[in-house]
Amino acid sequence: MDASEFRRRGKEMVDYVADYMEGIEGRQVYPDVEPGYLRPLIPTTAPQEPDTFEDIINDVEKIIMPGVTHWHSPYFFAYFPTASSYPSMLADMLCGAIGCIGFSWAASPACTELETVMMDWLGKMLQLPEAFLAGNAGEGGGVIQGSASEATLVALLAARTKVTRRLQAASPGLTQAAIMEKLVAYSSDQVVATLGTTSCCSFDNLLEVGPICIKEDVWLHIDAAYAGSAFICPEFRPLLNGVEFADSFNFNPHKWLLVNFDCSAMWVKKRTDLTGAFKLDPVYLKHSHQDSGLITDYRHWQLPLGRRFRSLKMWFVFRMYGIKGLQAYIRKHVQLSHEFESLVQQDPRFEICAEVTLGLVCFRLKGSNKLTKALLERINNAKKIHLVPCHLRDKFVLRFAICSRTVESAHVQLAWEHIRGLATELLKAEKE
Amino acid sequence: MDASEFRRRGKEMVDYVADYMEGIEGRQVYPDVEPGYLRPLIPTTAPQEPDTFEDIINDVEKIIMPGVTHWHSPYFFAYFPTASSYPSMLADMLCGAIGCIGFSWAASPACTELETVMMDWLGKMLQLPEAFLAGNAGEGGGVIQGSASEATLVALLAARTKVTRRLQAASPGLTQAAIMEKLVAYSSDQVVATLGTTSCCSFDNLLEVGPICIKEDVWLHIDAAYAGSAFICPEFRPLLNGVEFADSFNFNPHKWLLVNFDCSAMWVKKRTDLTGAFKLDPVYLKHSHQDSGLITDYRHWQLPLGRRFRSLKMWFVFRMYGIKGLQAYIRKHVQLSHEFESLVQQDPRFEICAEVTLGLVCFRLKGSNKLTKALLERINNAKKIHLVPCHLRDKFVLRFAICSRTVESAHVQLAWEHIRGLATELLKAEKE
Repeated sequence: MDASEFRRRGKEMVDYVADYMEGIEGRQVYPDVEPGYLRPLIPTTAPQEPDTFEDIINDVEKIIMPGVTHWHSPYFFAYFPTASSYPSMLADMLCGAIGCIGFSWAASPACTELETVMMDWLGKMLQLPEAFLAGNAGEGGGVIQGSASEATLVALLAARTKVTRRLQAASPGLTQAAIMEKLVAYSSDQVVATLGTTSCCSFDNLLEVGPICIKEDVWLHIDAAYAGSAFICPEFRPLLNGVEFADSFNFNPHKWLLVNFDCSAMWVKKRTDLTGAFKLDPVYLKHSHQDSGLITDYRHWQLPLGRRFRSLKMWFVFRMYGIKGLQAYIRKHVQLSHEFESLVQQDPRFEICAEVTLGLVCFRLKGSNKLTKALLERINNAKKIHLVPCHLRDKFVLRFAICSRTVESAHVQLAWEHIRGLATELLKAEKE
Repeated sequence: MDASEFRRRGKEMVDYVADYMEGIEGRQVYPDVEPGYLRPLIPTTAPQEPDTFEDIINDVEKIIMPGVTHWHSPYFFAYFPTASSYPSMLADMLCGAIGCIGFSWAASPACTELETVMMDWLGKMLQLPEAFLAGNAGEGGGVIQGSASEATLVALLAARTKVTRRLQAASPGLTQAAIMEKLVAYSSDQVVATLGTTSCCSFDNLLEVGPICIKEDVWLHIDAAYAGSAFICPEFRPLLNGVEFADSFNFNPHKWLLVNFDCSAMWVKKRTDLTGAFKLDPVYLKHSHQDSGLITDYRHWQLPLGRRFRSLKMWFVFRMYGIKGLQAYIRKHVQLSHEFESLVQQDPRFEICAEVTLGLVCFRLKGSNKLTKALLERINNAKKIHLVPCHLRDKFVLRFAICSRTVESAHVQLAWEHIRGLATELLKAEKE
């Protein structure tokens, strides 16, 4: 495929994508396929000779789409949202074309520098303490990780390296193995201090935990993977109070800030804590500026060596929405979850199971867990909406998460009418 | 931005991308910017109100492009290639639109199932032993990781879990800490058994290492990050002989197989070795099929929870090139590296420093390391081509890697003339 064919096929794909997004409401949110459906539909080996683009795009509709769970359908209320926006898709196209691997400053200076500045922009949007920003001469700074899991692992390894060095400096006789044996990582029942847990979006009390960590010289890592995006709104920012006690903080703009996956934002107060733990300097990656203190080599901040030009997505999204547009987006989702909450509250057969703070409503049918499980089964069989359950202590609970960029009040109302209807059928069947 | 504006801007972006790729030869391969160039060029905070798309795309040319190292320029011979092709970019557009997070089968069945089948396709292209394939009822199978580092870490953790369980089964009194203290990971000087090292693309002897690992019950992980793509050509496949002794094998189609970053292909012989080490099953990720034995939940195969629909890129590329097209691409690069090798050999001032097997030529000026370092400095200052050095034992060596999809004999010839000319100037200056 040469550039001129790409011009043609690329534009067809743009239309396919736009058609898909515009028509997504008409597709069944959860697919009908059974495990193993796909293998018999395609050849057992790659073709020797090229297939045509038409063949492939036809197969997308015939083979792929019937097996897709449509995360961006306005009837998708499962898990947590995964971000999707047109500006982000445009940036991804550019990112793919530039196709640099930004493991060092020299590998593509723009890739590294835009990332540092975008992480400052985002940090300011969250009103993070100055210590987390890179600025012109700060000791802190931000980095884009692939996922919150990677950010947690990076924080854990950095913390381990830091404490090992501290102990070895104090007692030079100590072996690394002896130190390892004694190290303890404290965590909540969701691991690390969490703002906005997956099950029910609850919040750890940083103002209690933080001072203890400072006093005991314990590395504090805060994970606000989902909730973090909301902190760009002043009314939700108090949920982040106490972040000033943390060594590292992380949340996922790829969940709720309209930046397509993957983009997990992580900040540290002392970037030398990361670079000290991960430094990797073979000759083929050395460059003339690296010891100047002026530059950032992001390979020292993460586990993989390679990295894409992901900050382009942040730049496009922040600029094309503006802070006000992003705040309005968050607020709309929170408002929709409160709307659903009040619908549930008006029906005496149901109960709300956790405080609704952001975009998640946990609810159930009053009575046995069996009853709510049976309701979920009916919901999943009908496939008009999609949601997943969780356990809150001993209760089996349904999670209704506001997910889609295009979800409106009408979808929430329809979803609730659907759930209510299924509940009525269920309760009637139970009585019979 | 609504769908209709996306149709317009998306098509403009397709043209921008095509223009960039068509004109890349005219751009200076390595940028002129100094560290910190970007920050003063953009505002210190995100805008409150939206910027226009025109503003942004103008800034791409004004602010971003001057700081880009053009990895896809035919004058880029640094590091190793990173893959780029139009079919892959088209697939990435679709991947962004579907935007599913395929952590479980249920999260998007097509995402999981296409990945399993594509990894089988690719495994067959490499003539991997049957034991590594999933097929309909195999115990092995493949997974797409983000990078070779992640694949290595996953293999290491799986190996550790496996041996710990074996030892604990044999001696139930052993604590995990006592076992950890005794575990040893053997590695070459490039870590793990490597086919195609970064410095000089050398190959470990699997036929020697393999049987020892089998005899001693040691987990053997093989990393062929760069070289792996070449094994789709029968004439290079012997380099992979011995893979039958391995427990896990990994290479990066995102380097040399025209699948844009990230796409690191990993296979294991027993997928229960991975799922046993990483299994994570909160209620909100459970689904009705998961205990049926019929499905794959890829979250148990990797470190992060989230994952994109990356197998679309493989599907588009394999189909639109065909196996023959991919083989021709590999062969062309290998031929170009041999062409460069013979140019170097014809100049008595230079020497070849390692056997040229695939697309990398290691060479230097005869004489002191200082001389070759001075030559590299001239090359880097001229910025007509871009390459990086390495150390081979005590020698400072230049790496000439065939990288770009569009590199032709004429570019290689020009690059060599340029290097020769700089060498002549240098040697003349040295004499004066």
